[in-house]
Amino acid sequence: MSNREKHDRMANAIRFLAMDAVQAANSGHPGLPMGAADIATVLFTKVLKFDATDPNWADRDRFILSAGHGSMLLYSLLYLTGYEGVSIEDIKQFRQLGSKTPGHPEYHHTVGVETTTGPLGQGLANSVGFALGERIMAAQFGGDLVDHYTYALVGDGCLMEGISEEAIELAGHLKLGKLIVLYDDNHITIDGPTSLSVSTDQLARFEASGWDATRIDGHDPEAILAALERAKTTDKPSLIACRTTIGFGSPNKAGSNGVHGSPLGAAEIAATRQALNWEAEPFVVPTDVLDAWRLAGLRSRQAHKAWSQRLADTEIELRSEFERRLRGDLPSRFAEAINGVIAKAIADGGAVATRKSSEIVLDTITQTVPELVGGSADLTHSNNTKTKAVSKAVEAGDYAGRYVNWGIREHAMAAGMNGLALHGGLIPYGGTFLVFSDYCRPSIRLSALMGIRVVYVFTHDSIGVGEDGPTHQPVEHLAALRAIPNLLVFRPCDTVETAEAWKIALEHKTSPTVLALTRQNLPLLRTEPSEKCLSARGAYEIIASSGTAKVSLFASGSEVSLAAEARELLEARGVPTRVVSVPCFELFENQPEETRRQVIGSAPVKIAIEAGIRQGWDGLIGSDIGFVGMSGFGASGPAPQVFAHFGITKEAVVAAAEAKLGKVG
Amino acid sequence: MSNREKHDRMANAIRFLAMDAVQAANSGHPGLPMGAADIATVLFTKVLKFDATDPNWADRDRFILSAGHGSMLLYSLLYLTGYEGVSIEDIKQFRQLGSKTPGHPEYHHTVGVETTTGPLGQGLANSVGFALGERIMAAQFGGDLVDHYTYALVGDGCLMEGISEEAIELAGHLKLGKLIVLYDDNHITIDGPTSLSVSTDQLARFEASGWDATRIDGHDPEAILAALERAKTTDKPSLIACRTTIGFGSPNKAGSNGVHGSPLGAAEIAATRQALNWEAEPFVVPTDVLDAWRLAGLRSRQAHKAWSQRLADTEIELRSEFERRLRGDLPSRFAEAINGVIAKAIADGGAVATRKSSEIVLDTITQTVPELVGGSADLTHSNNTKTKAVSKAVEAGDYAGRYVNWGIREHAMAAGMNGLALHGGLIPYGGTFLVFSDYCRPSIRLSALMGIRVVYVFTHDSIGVGEDGPTHQPVEHLAALRAIPNLLVFRPCDTVETAEAWKIALEHKTSPTVLALTRQNLPLLRTEPSEKCLSARGAYEIIASSGTAKVSLFASGSEVSLAAEARELLEARGVPTRVVSVPCFELFENQPEETRRQVIGSAPVKIAIEAGIRQGWDGLIGSDIGFVGMSGFGASGPAPQVFAHFGITKEAVVAAAEAKLGKVG
Repeated sequence: MSNREKHDRMANAIRFLAMDAVQAANSGHPGLPMGAADIATVLFTKVLKFDATDPNWADRDRFILSAGHGSMLLYSLLYLTGYEGVSIEDIKQFRQLGSKTPGHPEYHHTVGVETTTGPLGQGLANSVGFALGERIMAAQFGGDLVDHYTYALVGDGCLMEGISEEAIELAGHLKLGKLIVLYDDNHITIDGPTSLSVSTDQLARFEASGWDATRIDGHDPEAILAALERAKTTDKPSLIACRTTIGFGSPNKAGSNGVHGSPLGAAEIAATRQALNWEAEPFVVPTDVLDAWRLAGLRSRQAHKAWSQRLADTEIELRSEFERRLRGDLPSRFAEAINGVIAKAIADGGAVATRKSSEIVLDTITQTVPELVGGSADLTHSNNTKTKAVSKAVEAGDYAGRYVNWGIREHAMAAGMNGLALHGGLIPYGGTFLVFSDYCRPSIRLSALMGIRVVYVFTHDSIGVGEDGPTHQPVEHLAALRAIPNLLVFRPCDTVETAEAWKIALEHKTSPTVLALTRQNLPLLRTEPSEKCLSARGAYEIIASSGTAKVSLFASGSEVSLAAEARELLEARGVPTRVVSVPCFELFENQPEETRRQVIGSAPVKIAIEAGIRQGWDGLIGSDIGFVGMSGFGASGPAPQVFAHFGITKEAVVAAAEAKLGKVG
Repeated sequence: MSNREKHDRMANAIRFLAMDAVQAANSGHPGLPMGAADIATVLFTKVLKFDATDPNWADRDRFILSAGHGSMLLYSLLYLTGYEGVSIEDIKQFRQLGSKTPGHPEYHHTVGVETTTGPLGQGLANSVGFALGERIMAAQFGGDLVDHYTYALVGDGCLMEGISEEAIELAGHLKLGKLIVLYDDNHITIDGPTSLSVSTDQLARFEASGWDATRIDGHDPEAILAALERAKTTDKPSLIACRTTIGFGSPNKAGSNGVHGSPLGAAEIAATRQALNWEAEPFVVPTDVLDAWRLAGLRSRQAHKAWSQRLADTEIELRSEFERRLRGDLPSRFAEAINGVIAKAIADGGAVATRKSSEIVLDTITQTVPELVGGSADLTHSNNTKTKAVSKAVEAGDYAGRYVNWGIREHAMAAGMNGLALHGGLIPYGGTFLVFSDYCRPSIRLSALMGIRVVYVFTHDSIGVGEDGPTHQPVEHLAALRAIPNLLVFRPCDTVETAEAWKIALEHKTSPTVLALTRQNLPLLRTEPSEKCLSARGAYEIIASSGTAKVSLFASGSEVSLAAEARELLEARGVPTRVVSVPCFELFENQPEETRRQVIGSAPVKIAIEAGIRQGWDGLIGSDIGFVGMSGFGASGPAPQVFAHFGITKEAVVAAAEAKLGKVG
C-alpha cells in the first residue's frame, strides 16, 4: 500500500466514525470531521507530540478543536490513537446522556480534551493563552521541561467572531511563534456559502497582525505536512488556510451546507462507503488501519521518555517546584502570607478603595505565589492589578515577565486566561471595569463550565463610578454574574474581606472567581482579628445589635459601611439593629440550612442594601424584605450626588427600616 | 487672517472648551478632543451635511463619536455650531448630575447625539447599521429623499475590541461606500503607548476586508479635507487613519497617556493657552470664532431646503409612507394582521415550536410592516427569521432586500441593529441562539439604555436544545437578560403568546425586546379567542382551578404546557390547581399591586417552573415557593432525557406541590 493509500484509509476511518456516530445519534455535525480528516491525520500521525498512554504529559503539544461542533473529529482521534477512556462503545454513545462523547468537547469530562469548545472563536483565543502559557513556563523552568507547540483547528465561524481578531492581534503582537492555526477553509457556513456574509482576505488579515500565513490544499497530505513543518520554523504565529471540501467523500452532499450539522442519512452514507471504497461496517475500523493509528498514538513515547529523564535529572528544588505548579497546589506559605496582609490591614486601619485593597493583597501574594500571572485590558492603574513582583510584562521574544498587557480586548483576555489556566502551572488574573464583564461574558461562562481557576478583577463596581455615567456604571452585572453557575462572585466590603476573597479564590481549584471592587474609599470594618475566614461562609453577622435585633441589614461591598452608618442611626433611635455582610451569594447558598437561618436571623425587619438591582436578594434572604438599591440605569455626576440621587443613603435605609417596622408593629 | 489661521482658531475653540470643561468638572477626557479637533473642524465646517437648527433632519449626514469618552469634542461641536439645547451653560455643567453634558454621549438625552457611546467599538458597529440603513431606505424611497453619509470617529480602543472586526468585515462585504471612518491614530491608550499591546497594520487590516484605507497627518486641514473628499467618491467604505497627537497643544502633556483621562491642571492649561495663543477666558469663545462656527452650523441649509422641496414634491402616497416610517408609527393594519394570525393559530391548533410560531407571525407582519428588516447570525433556518417578504437579502451594491446575513457575528448584528433602528424608518430584528445572547450582551444593554425598538429573536431557549450540550444550553440567560433594565424579555408558551409578544415588541417604541423561543414543539394552550392582549400584563391565569385553588403553578414558555399537564395530575388527585403563564417579568412587575396580587392568587402552595435557574422568581411571586428548574449547567443528550435527568417533569411538579401541601397541611 502506498503512503498515500495508507493516509487515505486512516483519514477515512475518521470520516466513517463521524458519519456513523452522527447517524446513530441522529444528531451532530459530520461535515467538519469529513473535511478536516486529512489535516488531522497528518497532524496526529506525523507532527503532534503526544502520548496516548499519558494524556496529561505536561510537555505534550496541545491540540485545540476550536470548531467544537466537529467533536467527532476529536473523539475519533482519541479513540483511534488509543486514549484509554474513549472506546468504540463511547463513540457509539455519541451525544447520549452521560456518555464520554457529548455534542461538544468538554474539558475534564473526556480525557484528551484540552478545553471546552463549541461557542465559536473561544478555542482560538484559548490557544493564544496556551501558547503564551508555554512561553511563560519555559521562561521560568527552561526549555528542557517546557517546549511544545499549540495547534488550533478553526472554522469560518471562529474567524468571523470578533474574539478571533483580538486573539490574532495578541498572538502576532507577542510573536507566539509556536502557535499554529489550521483554518478549515471550506467556504461553507450553516446558512450557505461563505460568500453570503464574508469577503475578507484571511491571509492578508492575519499578515496585517504579524502572522505567517499560507494557503494549501487541505486534502493533500504532503502539502499539509510541508506547511506544518514550515510553520514550526518561523518565529511568528502561523496560519495555514487549508482549502477543504466540507463533508469530503459524500457524493451528493460534499461541499454544501446540508452536510454541516445533520446526519447524512443511510443512503448517502452507503454511497459514501462506495465512493471511498470503505468496506467496513459502522463502528468497525479495519485492523490494519487501527494498528496504524495506535502506532501513531505511541509515536512520541521516545520523546516523552527523554523528557521524563530530563525532569528526573532536574535539580530537586526546581523539579519539586515544577511538580507543585503542575499539581496546582499553592505554596505552603500562602495562608500565612494572607494572614499577614490581614493583620497589617487591621493594624493600619484607614479607608481605602477595595481595588486598592486588592492591590495590597496582590503586592504580597504575587511575591508568594509565583504562578500568578497578572494583567488588565488597558486599565492597569484603574484595576490596580500591577505589583512589583509582576511589574515586568511579557513581550515579543521575552516571556520572563508575569504581566500581560491584553489591550482593550476583554474577551480575548478572559479566553486567554482560560488558556493560561488550562495549560497548567499558572494562575491568571486580569482586570477590567465591572460593566465590561459583558464584553467577556462568554469566556467567563466557559471558565465556570470548565471549573478552572481564573480570577476576574472587576473594579468600578457600581454607580460609585460617578461622572462616567450609565454606560460605565454597572447596575445589573452583579446579578447577571451571580446567575452563572459555579462562579464565585465576591463583593468585599474592606481590605480584610478582600484578602479573604483572594484566599478563597486561589484555594478553590474548581471555580473561577469574580472580585467586584470599588473605585471609592471604604472604611475598614473588620477591625478585629478572626481565627476563621468569615467570607468563606458567604455571609455573616459583621456587627451585632445592642439587644434582640429588630432590624437586620444585609449588604455587600460599599454598602456594608452604609449599613453600619444606618445601624448607628437606628440604634440611636432605640432600634436594635444588626448588620450582615454578604460578600458571596454562592458560598452562602451552599451553607447548611441551619447556618443560613442563623445568619439571616429572626429580626422582624430585613433590609437588603446594594448599589445594584434587587434581583437575587429575595431568593437569598426571603422576599419579605425592604430593598435599598437601583431599579434602572445610573446617571453621570459626582459619585456622592449620584448615590443621593438614587436614594442609596443611610437615611433611606433608616426610612425603609422604619416603614417596615411600622408595618410589623 | 489666513484660512489656516482661521481653521486653527476654530479648532482651538474646541480644545479650550474641552480643557476648561474637564478642569471645571475635575473629571473627564481632554486628550481626544484636543487631538481630534482639527479633524472635527474640517468635517463640520467643510464636509458634514447637517443643519444645527433642525437636528433631526432625516437626510443629515450622521456623525458617530465611537470614542465616546471624547464627549467634550461632540458637546463643543454642538454648542459651537449652534444646536439649541447645548448652551455654554450646559458645557459648564459637564459631567454634573442632570446636565445635558454627561460623561459619555447619551442618545435621546442630548440633542445631536446620534447614539450612546462609551463602551468601545459600539459606535463603529452602530455606524455600519446607520450606513446600511441609509442604503436600505434609499432603495425603498429613492435618492431624492435618502442620500447621506455616515462618519464615525474611532480610537485605538474601538479598533482593538473584537466587535470592530465584525463591523469592518460586514461593511466591506456589503460595500457600504458611504461609510467613512476617521481613526484618531494617536499611538496612546490608557496604559501607555499602543506599542504595549498592538502592532497590527490597521490599513492592511481594513484593506483585507475590502476597505479603501489611507493615512494622513491629522493636524493638516488640507490633507483631512482631501482625504474626506476622496473617501466620498469610492464605492468602498473608507478608513482615514489620521495621525494625531493626543492632547495637541499642551506643552508638557501632549502625546502622553497622562492627558487621556484626567484634567490637565490649571498650570498646564495656562501653558497651553500661551502655546496656542489663546487669549480668551475659560468658556469664552471669541466672537469671530463663534461667528465662524455658527455659520458652519447653517452651511447645509440650502441643501436642507432643496431636500424639503423634493419631499414636498414627492407623490403623496410615498411621502406619507416616508413620514410615517420616520415617525416610527406602525401601519394602521398592523393590529388587524396580528389578530388574524391569532385567529388562524387557534383555528389550526396543533403543536409547533415557538420559533416556528414566530415565523408564522413574521410571515404575516413582514408583509404588513415594510419597515421590518430581518436577519440572523448564520442561523436563519434555526431561528426561523426569514419569510417570503424578506427573502431577498441585502448585498453589495443591491440594498433592495430586507434581510441581513450578519454572518457568525452576533455582536455586530446587535450593534448594527441598534444603528438601523437609530437611523430611522426601519425596525430591525435578528436571530441567534439564546445562549449566544452573551456574545452580544454589551449591545443589548445599549439598546435598552437608549430605549430603541430592536427585536432579538433568541431561539433554542433551554436544555431543550438537547444533544448540543451545556455550551449550547442556556440556563442563566433568562435571568441575566431580565436583569437588564428596560428590556422586555418574553418567553411565550404557544403561538398566541408569541403573536402577542411580537405585537407588544413592535408597539413598544421605547424598549428593545427579547423573544426566547423553543426548538421543540409546544401545544397550543390559548385555544380561546381573547379580546385583550393577555401577555401585555406580563402574567395571567391561563388555566383556572376546578375549585378554590390549593396550588398555583407559575411557568413560562415550554414549561407552561408542563404545568398544564401537572395540573391535570393534581386535579385528578383532588387538588384544585391553577396555572399562571408568565411570558414577561418586566411587564408584570409594572402592573398595579392589586393586579399582581390577583394574578399571584392566594393558593397556599406556589410552584414556579422554568427550565432555567430560579433567580428572579422569588422576587416576582415571593420566596415561599417551590421551584422546578435548573441549578447548574445542562448536559448533552436527547432533549426529553435531559429534561428527565434534571427533574423538569410533570411528576416532579406534582411532587413539589405535594411536598409543599404536606407542609401547609
